[in-house]
Amino acid sequence: MSDLPKRIAVHEEGPREGFQIETGPIATADKVRFCEALAETGLHEVQCVSFVDARRVPGMADAMEVAAAIRQRPDVHYTGIALNLRGYERAVETPLHIRGGLQMSASNTFSMQNTNKNNEQTLHEQRRQMAFFREKNIPVDSAIVMTAFGCNYEGAIAPETVRDCVGSLLNIADEFGVTLERVRLADTVGWGSPLQVQRVVGTVRDKWPDLHLSLHLHDTRGTGLANALMALQMGIDDFDSSCAGLGGCPFAGHKGAAGNICTEDLVFMAHEMGIETGIDLDALIECARLAETIVGHALPGKIMHGGSLSKYRQGASA
Amino acid sequence: MSDLPKRIAVHEEGPREGFQIETGPIATADKVRFCEALAETGLHEVQCVSFVDARRVPGMADAMEVAAAIRQRPDVHYTGIALNLRGYERAVETPLHIRGGLQMSASNTFSMQNTNKNNEQTLHEQRRQMAFFREKNIPVDSAIVMTAFGCNYEGAIAPETVRDCVGSLLNIADEFGVTLERVRLADTVGWGSPLQVQRVVGTVRDKWPDLHLSLHLHDTRGTGLANALMALQMGIDDFDSSCAGLGGCPFAGHKGAAGNICTEDLVFMAHEMGIETGIDLDALIECARLAETIVGHALPGKIMHGGSLSKYRQGASA
Repeated sequence: MSDLPKRIAVHEEGPREGFQIETGPIATADKVRFCEALAETGLHEVQCVSFVDARRVPGMADAMEVAAAIRQRPDVHYTGIALNLRGYERAVETPLHIRGGLQMSASNTFSMQNTNKNNEQTLHEQRRQMAFFREKNIPVDSAIVMTAFGCNYEGAIAPETVRDCVGSLLNIADEFGVTLERVRLADTVGWGSPLQVQRVVGTVRDKWPDLHLSLHLHDTRGTGLANALMALQMGIDDFDSSCAGLGGCPFAGHKGAAGNICTEDLVFMAHEMGIETGIDLDALIECARLAETIVGHALPGKIMHGGSLSKYRQGASA
Repeated sequence: MSDLPKRIAVHEEGPREGFQIETGPIATADKVRFCEALAETGLHEVQCVSFVDARRVPGMADAMEVAAAIRQRPDVHYTGIALNLRGYERAVETPLHIRGGLQMSASNTFSMQNTNKNNEQTLHEQRRQMAFFREKNIPVDSAIVMTAFGCNYEGAIAPETVRDCVGSLLNIADEFGVTLERVRLADTVGWGSPLQVQRVVGTVRDKWPDLHLSLHLHDTRGTGLANALMALQMGIDDFDSSCAGLGGCPFAGHKGAAGNICTEDLVFMAHEMGIETGIDLDALIECARLAETIVGHALPGKIMHGGSLSKYRQGASA
């Protein structure tokens, strides 16, 4: 366990993950309130919305309004994502911190199903996007490899395939003179197991030992935090996660697709292991409870129901 | 990860855990059906009922009827638990495989709250029970230390306290000439973190390197499977768990007390890591769905909602 990081960065994706998949209409004011509450917990990034086609993702129809209404703290990055140039064109009109990214899927079939592009076409599209980012002065900070741990269409994904995807994206970044802050490996449809995390992270790191890797884990089959533990043991210090466990991929190709790992459960585990996050766990748990109130049903986060240990520790020491 | 076991034993506690905490009345026939279905999955033990005071635990009022009605397979142990001599006297009248056990809590306050006995009185009671087991020819197979990872009344529990409890119970076993098959460390109220698992297991094992340790983990705060992963990495090969994540401790002193770690999520993780369980995962997932039907509400297990990977793997290789 000597490789445990001293501190991890947590990228909160709950508002975007949650509001894109919840079927009930959620008031714009509630979305804004939730983003603002999250920003009070010590999180350094809150991903608020996605700029996607409202016909495909009705919950994001008010993305421009949400982005405009949030009262921003100066020490928090309020971000949003886009999947194509049209989305980015809308995104840059908002006060959000829009950053470009490179993306591809380790599964060619997943790409075809979700974007109607094969991997070669995806890489071509990424170059076109990079040119657009340069033209619009949008900083590019990361690359993401989706379905890096398995795919519902192609089954198991070889770690070497993920490594080659990382290589392709790093090459494009190089072509444009961009140094990426992090490369994200995404368990888009929840195939990850601790051993698969070890294999994929190990294979990528063998080739680029100094590359800053980040994990985007979904908890589809219950191993989310165990996968995160394995990553921590390998020194991974950067995670995407979702308050209350909000979310799920609307395009994942099967129902029960669970959301990202739950932010407050991850933060609890980190703190209990002596790993700093800079986040006020009790405040974050209150955000998770607010999320349940807003969506109107129970959400999968655990510690929001079990309660943090702070009151017991206080009681025990009183 | 070289200490990973090749195979783990899984002790299914779902029926007992679940039916003791569900508030709605559950038909005796449904309880029987669930136990019988679990026994078809490859599980070697199904803990069916507890013989407790029906005034405190109304869901166990029909424990004798459930125990009598189950059609037993010869290769499965159908067990039940009792918390005192009166319970054991009822238990041994049933066709279940009743085995005696030693138990105490690492937290004196937890003992006082739940049994109205302090630790000294508990040890005295254990000797009285051991004499009873001997008189009734009830085999004694295990000892359990409850609240081994923390307590809502006392807060953190020192690993040395757990070690001393194990020592006290081993001494009693010795006095009666009994060799225990396993010593179970229970995270009764869900305080465990991977680091705490490492500390407690390490401290106990330092003193008794050859003692067969088993973990009874609750998933109160989301770290259940991460705690199990840490245990696996330390070579622990024996776990209690609960199909569908049924359960929760009715005496734990707070509401949100979650049940044991979910059996089918644990089995999934084990299989994905190349660890055998002897269990048919898809059959077990069907049991979890049956449990949801029986209790009439969603249960916390994940893979029962996300689905196993077998159909995707078959599709991918077709």
